[in-house]
Amino acid sequence: MKILLRLSYDGQRYAGWQVQPNCWKPTLQQMLEEALEKVLLRPVRTLASGRTDAGVHALDQAVTFSTDAAIPECRWPLVLNPLLPEDMVVLSSSSVDENFHVMYDVVKKTYRYQIHLGVVPDVFQRGRCLEYRHPLDVTRMRKAADLMIGTHDFQAFCSANSSARHFVRTVQSIELNRSEDNIIIDVTGQGFLYNMVRIMVGTLLEVSERRLSLAQVTEAITSGKRELAGRTAKAAGLFLAQVEYE
Amino acid sequence: MKILLRLSYDGQRYAGWQVQPNCWKPTLQQMLEEALEKVLLRPVRTLASGRTDAGVHALDQAVTFSTDAAIPECRWPLVLNPLLPEDMVVLSSSSVDENFHVMYDVVKKTYRYQIHLGVVPDVFQRGRCLEYRHPLDVTRMRKAADLMIGTHDFQAFCSANSSARHFVRTVQSIELNRSEDNIIIDVTGQGFLYNMVRIMVGTLLEVSERRLSLAQVTEAITSGKRELAGRTAKAAGLFLAQVEYE
Repeated sequence: MKILLRLSYDGQRYAGWQVQPNCWKPTLQQMLEEALEKVLLRPVRTLASGRTDAGVHALDQAVTFSTDAAIPECRWPLVLNPLLPEDMVVLSSSSVDENFHVMYDVVKKTYRYQIHLGVVPDVFQRGRCLEYRHPLDVTRMRKAADLMIGTHDFQAFCSANSSARHFVRTVQSIELNRSEDNIIIDVTGQGFLYNMVRIMVGTLLEVSERRLSLAQVTEAITSGKRELAGRTAKAAGLFLAQVEYE
Repeated sequence: MKILLRLSYDGQRYAGWQVQPNCWKPTLQQMLEEALEKVLLRPVRTLASGRTDAGVHALDQAVTFSTDAAIPECRWPLVLNPLLPEDMVVLSSSSVDENFHVMYDVVKKTYRYQIHLGVVPDVFQRGRCLEYRHPLDVTRMRKAADLMIGTHDFQAFCSANSSARHFVRTVQSIELNRSEDNIIIDVTGQGFLYNMVRIMVGTLLEVSERRLSLAQVTEAITSGKRELAGRTAKAAGLFLAQVEYE
């Protein structure tokens, strides 16, 4: 039986989702697989909808694994949560078809980036937002965001460390919402390149700061040159917010 | 010059506000006084509007200290924040009259208690809410809260460890608000006994659970017997939310 888990986690203490050899920091996948092994008494491999980087959080990550254990499909939160660290939780579980692929069958993914604008840091959001001390020109940021929406070659918005060979991606929407001292940026698309959302946010910040013009954003997209896009916004503000399937 | 600071902190890692001899865990007062000593190059004593217990948080604590340093009265956040741990922040500062007493001049204080009701824990609120897995009868809790509003002898709602000799306090309001999976309880009064808000919340929970009837709440208030009130709700959910002066 293939089980689909929905997970939420605070990524602060982890070296990202994926199990990494020779890394002293634990990974979220490792924590989940250790919990599964405690239940099933044998090693279990899990697969996520996508890796999240070190320090990145998830409101709703999707993960699958296969098992023949006679545990009712909806009971995995009950079984696993007591075995997981307190910054990681299984929200729900269900069985899926053997042909379901948690990575390739994604129809839509939303990443959320949180920016805190107060004069002083918000101690209750530390490690989970970008602390930003300057006023933001949200109107200008929206204009730049509009340029990124659609199907483009996003090579300029991809970390040089990426092994990707195809850079065309479709961004369906970018929403900027302000609530009190926070700006929330929701980016929805079918798939993203390595660091793509963080570079998009960094670019929006540089547009607000007038380090970049709207014409330069267009040029970054057209040229595909990483150095023409903005900086990579720090991981702490990023959340994998939603993963949708058919 | 007497300076009034407004502070926010996450109390999780601390043994409460007050400096405690022979305690291995740091206290929030100690962190603040160490930061002040780094700036002023001599020991500085601070006084807070009230101590918060181990694990209790503050959205807006008030603290005073005296200094003859030529630092403009509003500049203390800028000076102190880089010297404070990341779970503690000075929100603002101002100078106050030498006769101002941060503890005795309080007109009104609000404590907030946060309860998370989801089926699974909220990893982003851990250490900052009571995780509660049962449905809450908010209507019944409101009726019990109404019995507590007003001027009463609150001895039944005071920890046995308290050194208080007078137990009459005035509770001006108790508001229960639900937002998504959270219940927020705001208790406002001029002053509170040791653990009073936590015992009030524990009592409201036991009323919801039908371990206590409304008549028994009245009896607890009338008799002053601690054992007739409910349990002490855990510290993690409690925030000192507001401290008001004339």
